[in-house]
Amino acid sequence: MAVIVQKFGGTSVANPQKIKAVAERVMGYHRQGHQMVVVLSAMAGETNRFVDLANQMQVIPDTREMDVLLATGEQVTIALFAMAVKEAGLDAVSLLGDQVKIVTDSMHTKARIQYIETERIRKHLADGKIVVVAGFQGVTQGGDVTTLGRGGSDTTAVALAAALAADECEIYTDVEGVYTTDPNICKNARKIDRISYDEMLELASLGAKVLDIRSVSIAKRHKVPVHVRSTFTDTVGTWVVEEDKDMESNPVSGVTCSKNEARITISRVPDVPGTASRIFNPITNEGIVVDMIIQNTRDGAMTDMTFTVPRTDYKKTMKIMEKVSADVGAEGVSGSDNIAKVSIVGVGMRNHAGIASTMFKVLSDEGINILMISTSEIKVSCVIEEKYTELAVRALHDAFGLEKCNK
Amino acid sequence: MAVIVQKFGGTSVANPQKIKAVAERVMGYHRQGHQMVVVLSAMAGETNRFVDLANQMQVIPDTREMDVLLATGEQVTIALFAMAVKEAGLDAVSLLGDQVKIVTDSMHTKARIQYIETERIRKHLADGKIVVVAGFQGVTQGGDVTTLGRGGSDTTAVALAAALAADECEIYTDVEGVYTTDPNICKNARKIDRISYDEMLELASLGAKVLDIRSVSIAKRHKVPVHVRSTFTDTVGTWVVEEDKDMESNPVSGVTCSKNEARITISRVPDVPGTASRIFNPITNEGIVVDMIIQNTRDGAMTDMTFTVPRTDYKKTMKIMEKVSADVGAEGVSGSDNIAKVSIVGVGMRNHAGIASTMFKVLSDEGINILMISTSEIKVSCVIEEKYTELAVRALHDAFGLEKCNK
Repeated sequence: MAVIVQKFGGTSVANPQKIKAVAERVMGYHRQGHQMVVVLSAMAGETNRFVDLANQMQVIPDTREMDVLLATGEQVTIALFAMAVKEAGLDAVSLLGDQVKIVTDSMHTKARIQYIETERIRKHLADGKIVVVAGFQGVTQGGDVTTLGRGGSDTTAVALAAALAADECEIYTDVEGVYTTDPNICKNARKIDRISYDEMLELASLGAKVLDIRSVSIAKRHKVPVHVRSTFTDTVGTWVVEEDKDMESNPVSGVTCSKNEARITISRVPDVPGTASRIFNPITNEGIVVDMIIQNTRDGAMTDMTFTVPRTDYKKTMKIMEKVSADVGAEGVSGSDNIAKVSIVGVGMRNHAGIASTMFKVLSDEGINILMISTSEIKVSCVIEEKYTELAVRALHDAFGLEKCNK
Repeated sequence: MAVIVQKFGGTSVANPQKIKAVAERVMGYHRQGHQMVVVLSAMAGETNRFVDLANQMQVIPDTREMDVLLATGEQVTIALFAMAVKEAGLDAVSLLGDQVKIVTDSMHTKARIQYIETERIRKHLADGKIVVVAGFQGVTQGGDVTTLGRGGSDTTAVALAAALAADECEIYTDVEGVYTTDPNICKNARKIDRISYDEMLELASLGAKVLDIRSVSIAKRHKVPVHVRSTFTDTVGTWVVEEDKDMESNPVSGVTCSKNEARITISRVPDVPGTASRIFNPITNEGIVVDMIIQNTRDGAMTDMTFTVPRTDYKKTMKIMEKVSADVGAEGVSGSDNIAKVSIVGVGMRNHAGIASTMFKVLSDEGINILMISTSEIKVSCVIEEKYTELAVRALHDAFGLEKCNK
C-alpha cells in the first residue's frame, strides 16, 4: 500500500464531467489500497477570468488581494471533486492551503513554501479518506492567503509528496509526458521515457511548460520520483528520476524555447566595484528573477550591461532601471521584449565536445543572429529575435537527431 | 467620528463597475472621518452558478464541501473591492471569515455565529484602512469553512456591528427600504420610515426578503440601529430601531407572503406522550426549521399532525417522515409544496381588537380557503393555496389601509 500524490491541471478539471472522470481515476487507485492525496488546479480559464476582473479594478492589481482572488479557483475545484468522490460512495475531504497548513513566505503571487504540516492529511488518510488539496495556494505565518505563481500546483504536489514521504508523485497533464521539444513546433518531437532531475530542471527553466521548475528542484532534493503523464490516456508518460546508466545516450536530450523573456541594456555604466549590486539589488528586491547577465567592457572605465527578465516584469524593471541608471551615472537604458531564448539540454554534453559550436553553426546556417549566449554544464542557451524561434527549434531538433531514441 | 458597518448585497456588486461605484460611496464616508467596515456578498448570479455546479457533482451535495464552494463567491468580491479602494489611493484590506475570526457552529450551509474576534479589524481601522469583510461565511473551531445560509451577509454585517459596538449598520440593497408589502405585488405599497425590531422580526420571518431575520434578532439584542436603504440612490431608507411613540399608529404595519413553505401531514398518530418529540426530533436534528404546527384530535387515541417546513427541505423532510411514520405507528404521510403563507404584522395589534377576524373575513370575501392559522402578539399568518397569494396580499393591503401613513 503506497502513498501516492496525484496532481491534475486546469484542462484535466475543466468542467464537471472532467472532474468526475478524474475522480474515477483516483478512486481506482484508492480501491487498489493506496492512500491518495490529490492536488488540483483551478478549472481551465478561471485564472484568466480573475486576472481580467482584477485588471478592471486596478492598473497594477494589489498582489495581496490578487492572491485572495486567485485562490478561489482551486477552492472551487477541490469542493466539486470531493463531492464527486462522495457521490460515488467513497469518502473525501477538501483542504485549502491554510487548512493543510502549507506555510509560505509573504511574497504575494509568487510565494515560496517554507514548510508543510502533514498531521491533518495523515489523519484523514488513516480514516480512509481521499484527501483533496487546493494546489497553487498557501498561507503566511500571519494568516494571509498566498499563491505560488505559475505552475504552483506542481510545486504543491511535489512538496506534499516530499513532506509525506510519498512513494510517487504523478503529474497529470494534457500531454503524454516530456518531449524532446514542443510537438506544436516540431512534428518530429518524441516522448522521453526517463529523464534525470538535472535535465528536467534545465528543460523546465528554459521554457518546457510541462513541469514547473520549483517542483523539479524539490523532487530532486527529496528524491521524489515524478511521473508526468496524460489525464486522458493510460499510457506511461515520462519518469523524472535520479540520473542512471539506462538513460538515453544522446548528447542532447531536448530543445526548448521561451518567449517569456525581455532584454534590458544599461549603457556606459562606470566600471567601479559595487555597481552590479547597485543595479541588480533594486530588481531582486522586487522579487524579479534576472536570468542571463552579460557585461561588455566598452572602454576603460565604462561597461554595457545586458540582462534578461521575465517578460511580465519588463515594464516594472524598465521603470526601476531608469531610476537606477541615473543613480549609478550610466548613459541610459534600452530594452526589447521582442526576443526569444532557444536552448539545448542534455547530461550527455558532459562527454561530448563541440556541442555548443554545433548549435551556433546550425543557427548561423539558418541566418539567425545570436544576441546573447549562456551555458551550463548540461545546456546551451541563445537569445535570438523572436520571429526566428520555431525555425531555430526545428533546425536544432533535426541537427542533433532527437527524433531517434539512442540507448 | 463613527464606526459604521455597511453591507452591500449581490446586485450592488454584480460587476466591476458596480463594485467601483460602491467603493466610491464607502470612501466618501471614510473621507468624512468615519471608520468603515464593509461587508460584501457574492456577485449576483454566482451563488446560483455554484449550486448548479454542485448539483452536477452530487444528487444531494455534501454540505461541508458546499460551504467550501459557496464561500469563494464573497472571497472574489472582497478582493476586487479592496483593489478598487487602493486604485483610488486609499488603503483597504480584505478579510475572510476565518481571518476575522467569525467563529460558527458546524451546521454547514446554515451555520450560526458563536462569536466574532474584533482585534484584527480594530487594528486595521486604527491604521486608517477600510476593512472589507466577506459576508455569509465563517469558520468552525476546527478550521472548517462554513456559510450562514440565505441572507447570511446581513447577519455578518449586524453581528460585526454588534461586536464592534458600531454606531450604525447600513444594509444596502436594490430597494429603497422596507415596504408595507411587496411593491411587485401591490402597486400601493409604501416605504416605511421607521419600524421596530419586533415588527421587522415578524416581517422578515414571514417572507419580507429585504432583511434576514437572524440579523434583525441580533440587532434587537444588541440595540444596533439598522438602516435599510438603496445602493443606487441617496434617499433615506427605513430605520429599524427600538419601538418608540413616534412610530406609525396603524394597527397593521405590513403584509407579507411567502412561497417558500411546504406542508406535511402525518395522519392517525397514536396520541401518547412523547410522540411529538419522536416526530420532530429527527427533523430538527437535520437542521430543518419547522414553522407552524397544528394538531387535530381525530378520535380518542389518534391525532393528525400538520406542520410546515421550508420548501427546500420538503423532499428531505418527507423522506424522514416516512421512516418516522412507521416508527410511531401512524397511518401515513402526505404533503404539498403548493401552498403559501400570507401574514399581517403590526405592534398596533396589541391595542386593536378584531384584527385577526378582519383578516379572515377579507380572505373569505375573496373566496380564499384558509388551510392553517398561526398567531402571535403582533402577527396573524394564514396558509392558503399558492395560486391565491397575490390576490390575498392586495386585498389585505387595501383592507387595512396601508397605502396611507398614519402618525
